[in-house]
Amino acid sequence: MERAGRSSTLGSTDDVELEPSGTSATIHLDMTAGGGSSSSDFNPFGAIDDVRFKTDDDLPDVMAPPFFSKYGDFHTIDWQRDLARDRLRHKMISKKKVDFPLGLLQSGWDAGAGWICVLFVGLAAGATAGIIDIGARWMSDLKTGVCADRFWLDHEHCCWSSNDTFYKDDDCKAWTKWPWMLNYYNSSSFLFLFLEWIFYIGWAVAMSTLAVLFVKIFAPYACGSGIPEIKCILSGFVIRGYLGKWTFIIKSVGLILSSASGLSLGKEGPMVHLACCIGNIFSYLFPKYGLNEAKKREILSASAAAGVSVAFGAPIGGVLFSLEEASYYFPLKTMWRSFFCALVAGIILRFVNPFGSNQTSLFHVDYMMKWTFIELVPFAILGLFGGIIGSLFIFANIRWSRFRKNSKMLGGNPIYEVMLITLVTAAISYFNPFTRKSAQSMIQQLFDRCEDQIDEDSLCDQNKALSIAFGQLLWALIFKFVITIFTFGIKVPCGLFVPSIGMGAIAGRILGITVDQIFRAVQATPGHSDYFTCQIGKDCVMPGLYAMVGAAAVLGGVTRMTVSLVVIMFELTGSLEFIVPTMVATMFSKWIGDGISKMGIYEAHIELNGYPFLDSKGEYPYSTVASQVMRPSIHRQVADEMSMSDLRELKNELSVITESGMTLGDLESLLRQTDFNGFPVVVSQNSMHLVGFITRRDILLALHTARKTQPYVVTNSIAYFSDGVPDAMPGGPAPLRLRKILDMAPMTVTDQTPMETVIDMFRKLGLRHVLVTKNGKVLGIITKKDILQFMRNKNSQ
Amino acid sequence: MERAGRSSTLGSTDDVELEPSGTSATIHLDMTAGGGSSSSDFNPFGAIDDVRFKTDDDLPDVMAPPFFSKYGDFHTIDWQRDLARDRLRHKMISKKKVDFPLGLLQSGWDAGAGWICVLFVGLAAGATAGIIDIGARWMSDLKTGVCADRFWLDHEHCCWSSNDTFYKDDDCKAWTKWPWMLNYYNSSSFLFLFLEWIFYIGWAVAMSTLAVLFVKIFAPYACGSGIPEIKCILSGFVIRGYLGKWTFIIKSVGLILSSASGLSLGKEGPMVHLACCIGNIFSYLFPKYGLNEAKKREILSASAAAGVSVAFGAPIGGVLFSLEEASYYFPLKTMWRSFFCALVAGIILRFVNPFGSNQTSLFHVDYMMKWTFIELVPFAILGLFGGIIGSLFIFANIRWSRFRKNSKMLGGNPIYEVMLITLVTAAISYFNPFTRKSAQSMIQQLFDRCEDQIDEDSLCDQNKALSIAFGQLLWALIFKFVITIFTFGIKVPCGLFVPSIGMGAIAGRILGITVDQIFRAVQATPGHSDYFTCQIGKDCVMPGLYAMVGAAAVLGGVTRMTVSLVVIMFELTGSLEFIVPTMVATMFSKWIGDGISKMGIYEAHIELNGYPFLDSKGEYPYSTVASQVMRPSIHRQVADEMSMSDLRELKNELSVITESGMTLGDLESLLRQTDFNGFPVVVSQNSMHLVGFITRRDILLALHTARKTQPYVVTNSIAYFSDGVPDAMPGGPAPLRLRKILDMAPMTVTDQTPMETVIDMFRKLGLRHVLVTKNGKVLGIITKKDILQFMRNKNSQ
Repeated sequence: MERAGRSSTLGSTDDVELEPSGTSATIHLDMTAGGGSSSSDFNPFGAIDDVRFKTDDDLPDVMAPPFFSKYGDFHTIDWQRDLARDRLRHKMISKKKVDFPLGLLQSGWDAGAGWICVLFVGLAAGATAGIIDIGARWMSDLKTGVCADRFWLDHEHCCWSSNDTFYKDDDCKAWTKWPWMLNYYNSSSFLFLFLEWIFYIGWAVAMSTLAVLFVKIFAPYACGSGIPEIKCILSGFVIRGYLGKWTFIIKSVGLILSSASGLSLGKEGPMVHLACCIGNIFSYLFPKYGLNEAKKREILSASAAAGVSVAFGAPIGGVLFSLEEASYYFPLKTMWRSFFCALVAGIILRFVNPFGSNQTSLFHVDYMMKWTFIELVPFAILGLFGGIIGSLFIFANIRWSRFRKNSKMLGGNPIYEVMLITLVTAAISYFNPFTRKSAQSMIQQLFDRCEDQIDEDSLCDQNKALSIAFGQLLWALIFKFVITIFTFGIKVPCGLFVPSIGMGAIAGRILGITVDQIFRAVQATPGHSDYFTCQIGKDCVMPGLYAMVGAAAVLGGVTRMTVSLVVIMFELTGSLEFIVPTMVATMFSKWIGDGISKMGIYEAHIELNGYPFLDSKGEYPYSTVASQVMRPSIHRQVADEMSMSDLRELKNELSVITESGMTLGDLESLLRQTDFNGFPVVVSQNSMHLVGFITRRDILLALHTARKTQPYVVTNSIAYFSDGVPDAMPGGPAPLRLRKILDMAPMTVTDQTPMETVIDMFRKLGLRHVLVTKNGKVLGIITKKDILQFMRNKNSQ
Repeated sequence: MERAGRSSTLGSTDDVELEPSGTSATIHLDMTAGGGSSSSDFNPFGAIDDVRFKTDDDLPDVMAPPFFSKYGDFHTIDWQRDLARDRLRHKMISKKKVDFPLGLLQSGWDAGAGWICVLFVGLAAGATAGIIDIGARWMSDLKTGVCADRFWLDHEHCCWSSNDTFYKDDDCKAWTKWPWMLNYYNSSSFLFLFLEWIFYIGWAVAMSTLAVLFVKIFAPYACGSGIPEIKCILSGFVIRGYLGKWTFIIKSVGLILSSASGLSLGKEGPMVHLACCIGNIFSYLFPKYGLNEAKKREILSASAAAGVSVAFGAPIGGVLFSLEEASYYFPLKTMWRSFFCALVAGIILRFVNPFGSNQTSLFHVDYMMKWTFIELVPFAILGLFGGIIGSLFIFANIRWSRFRKNSKMLGGNPIYEVMLITLVTAAISYFNPFTRKSAQSMIQQLFDRCEDQIDEDSLCDQNKALSIAFGQLLWALIFKFVITIFTFGIKVPCGLFVPSIGMGAIAGRILGITVDQIFRAVQATPGHSDYFTCQIGKDCVMPGLYAMVGAAAVLGGVTRMTVSLVVIMFELTGSLEFIVPTMVATMFSKWIGDGISKMGIYEAHIELNGYPFLDSKGEYPYSTVASQVMRPSIHRQVADEMSMSDLRELKNELSVITESGMTLGDLESLLRQTDFNGFPVVVSQNSMHLVGFITRRDILLALHTARKTQPYVVTNSIAYFSDGVPDAMPGGPAPLRLRKILDMAPMTVTDQTPMETVIDMFRKLGLRHVLVTKNGKVLGIITKKDILQFMRNKNSQ
């Protein structure tokens, strides 16, 4: 009795301990090491409440698996409890610090583990990004031809290395176009062009078909952008395998293939997903992170930052993206570590040097002119346009995605859908110089200023070539917009950043050219020549800047990013001077976009897929209190005037466990009759005063273990969650001590707490459930699901 | 009875309502409009708990002041309650939206108020910064001379506008030095130089004495950097007058004067304080913000961002500074608004154009070279140096500040201290070309690359001049370090950013020159000439980059900023290429600094001054539970085995109010006998089951009003916090209804909740207190003060 009493203040052991001595049995839970398979219903998780240590002496001596957490697939994690587990683990390691040298080493390793882990993640993310960039570029160029003497070079490098003075935009001698190899037709003959077109289409379709086959066969999670799911995972949702090694491999290969196919998609979103896969994989090297879901998310946040960092060459933008868009729990320590991770990834990418030059950024601009204040008007117009087109895109894409989801024809045949879309994309985009080249080259061309390439670039001509280019741009914009609606969501790895930037850049350039022409016209009118100083053959305004601002506007309209977007654009272009135009456009885009519909594309896809994501951004000005949302639901009026007899009636609705007095049989039948994931433990059914909370898993495991290993525990044994356990009757069943599997620190709110406060608690503290009390009595429970349900109802009203 | 019952579910009215009808009196509180003076002890604040509305019909019809909050000086605000008040206000406005056109207009105004407010703040902050910059520069240059024909021009503009070809670093003909005006001595004679020296010192002392006098006489809060106090205010502390108009005016003037005095101080910290003053002043135009302390802090966060934005010309850095360093409650909406505010302030500053050029940034660099990977080693060394010197600085400055605080001689005579330090600073710094010029020019010179000014700049000479400059730099570094320790904390407006950047830039340049020489030496040795390609007369490495990196390192060591620091440095210099070196240095600086001492200079000053600041950064791995920290304190063991009789003994310690049964006299004597700021309301002294919480202010106000206005309420009247109020005995005293002043949604935790969770709740939810319960019974209370006390004890152990 004495010993059992003492050991009950002890939170954890790592084996099953039988204690037949005396008259009571103490259940110690068998904890299997986390990280393995989780098919068993009796899988232990969080069975230990590690909050009841009172002195350091009570700490167990071994680093036992119960310090780690384990959740079922598609479950939500309990942040507070996971973090408590980690603190317990940390405490134990700190205690061992005195054991020289092993304890000290272990302690040092533990302290540095986070940094080492993100270092690895950064290295791997940078390398992966470099390889994918190079691979995608090479395979994409294979669409048109091959490098004659060195087949492993892409178009640009082939022409560079050939020492060929004849290199103009599209062509050099060393680069052998496909039809050329077959028969020596004149390269401008119709047949040659037709063959080239066929090759172009054929290669594209082959690539995308391969990509979709890989995804379908090996890793279904590898499709899409991945950012909506990453958001959910970072908010505490568990999707097994979504960040696994197979997803990583297939997504990498698929990304190269889908990029090479020339579809209207980007590598950036998938890069974030890949970086998170890397983070997840590496976190298993460090049990501190790999086996504790809440801690793992710190690594994943840093990985997401690294993903954006390598995607755009924008480390600061990456950190802000992780903060603003992706992450949920983002303490400043994580921010600093994300920064480091993004930095390392950026350095490595610079080292791999996939962009050929020494630039770390995807696009590099170096505008020499200044913008004038009057130009803020067209920039604001671009913002408005971005907000409108972004919302329109979201609306159409979600409509189409819903149709795809519900339609048997489309949903069942992803391969045909991909092939068809690739066919259409390739067939049409071949005929427009802007859509024909890779999105990245197109954006670079649109961003560029004119001064240097006036004779090469049709966009910089002031004569007929410009009108033709203008028409081509308009056509490209419409085509991009329509095809991207159908592309985003097909079953290949596909991101949305670059298509959005592309659309925006085209729109921006169109407006830029227009404004340039207007300025010239105004200057040409008598008496206005002082207003502008436009010179023939030079830009009057910078159409390239307009393209950049347009890109920010459309990207903002689609994703509803704000600060991180401006920082990414800023880092992309490296031009501090032009932060103000970008900011203005983003701001207008966000206002208009939010005015049309509150949700960005990622939130819209989260809602479409029904993920349990509690957005940390919104505000919910509802006049509801906790008792109106909790289950079992009672009308507030009733709860207000509830007497003891009412509570007695209520107890039939709310399934509770009493602190003492319930038998094993009672508990088992309660578990059978209900499907709740947990039960409040109360002093008595009459008083309903709250003692603690116990999860279904814990109690199932405890009962299972007791039944299996302790033969004297029978159906009539009384389960005690209290401290004082009476001696068993002579000959009667042995009592069962369960106090140590009880969570003695459940979160509670009173019935009159406004729902805004409750939602705030869920978001900021990462709760899974909260108990509703009134005068110390348990009335009901509110789970994350209830909150989401409540918010959906409120929003649809 | 019926009517009283209904009205008790109603949360607010704006007048005193007497209800002599029937047998009970209902207290409605007299709410004076917030924002006025607060000397009265009966000042109403939060007397209305707005959480008990159940339907929209229950909403009051007028926008009454109780939607706003009011706190005493040096009190902590209750975030949850303030935000609830704002939601109530918002709900009421939304309800009126249907009233065309007034309600709609009001609703629109309300929605746009935040943006309009930050727009004004941005405009005003930009203008203020421009004026201060121009003023400080002009008055600073007056130290050495005056512009002969146009006295209102500073040195640089004077020389520019004079069309004088003879303009070399320090001199031009139009600029008349002071001694010159007196007698036409040879400008290199000893007497001339001596007189110049005396003028230099005299002007400096005059300026600083004026500054300290202004501060002492008109606005004592105007001294210092202000950032520690801003941090506390943003975390929810109320310091009346700290952000008032007098502080603003005096700090602006004092800042110009103290900058002009040539003391080793910066304008940047005070600029943040000034921006927050502007935010506070403008917020009163919008009652939504001005009269609700929690909402006001949203504006203040944006203001802080604008302050940094104008101080450094770094809008993104400003937002990140506000996020990382200054703010406490920083939802994403605030982030976006801060961004806007910082942007507007930046545009205005660009318009005012105080830096003469068209650059928005304080320093502008344009390095043409690339750095090599091997240089990361010296960059890391700079980081180490920055961490060490930063910690040393904090240690010494805090020691000196503590001495100043405790010493009667220094504390009582701030004027003499300022005069003495100015005298020493001016007298010594005159003799070193680097300390003589303004800190900003010095930093700009150290940051600059060498290519263009090889014949002008001693730092770019490869011969003897370099050795002399090297010695001068070393001497400047030591001088700067020592004098800044004594300067930061004197009673004039003084910031720490520029002095830190200055120290770092000097140290960096010293290392840069050294590395440059080493590289040259290695290149000169036979067989190593391929390693580096150093040319005579050009930089081999970029010493300017080293200066920049050193600046980041020291600033990081002093302030312990991370992400925001790198972004600020990045925006300062506008060079994306050099973000990696800055990041490396900042990282090492932070590691080393945190290894030596966890606190940055601002946290150290907060601790020194004993402000109740709950740092949102630290981690507290304690194995303590709530019952060990709460008051009244009971040993946990006891609490664990507490029986009903124990609780009865305890009740004498914990002052509670019962839901019903206590008379007015009982309440008044309870208020007299205790000095707690609030009391839990329980069902009965026996059961101790929690009903709600009531603050001292509310109950004082209610009793005062009742006594004053309702003659039939006597000492024997029974106060009811419950719903059901029995009829008074015939002839007996009238009962007093107090339910509506009761906070029915107090935050509670169980006694077994780990303190980490409790601290987390305080930080993330912005609580003032939390009630500790066990089995539904109130055991005690934990206030923010208790938490701070607990953390201090733990840290000192």
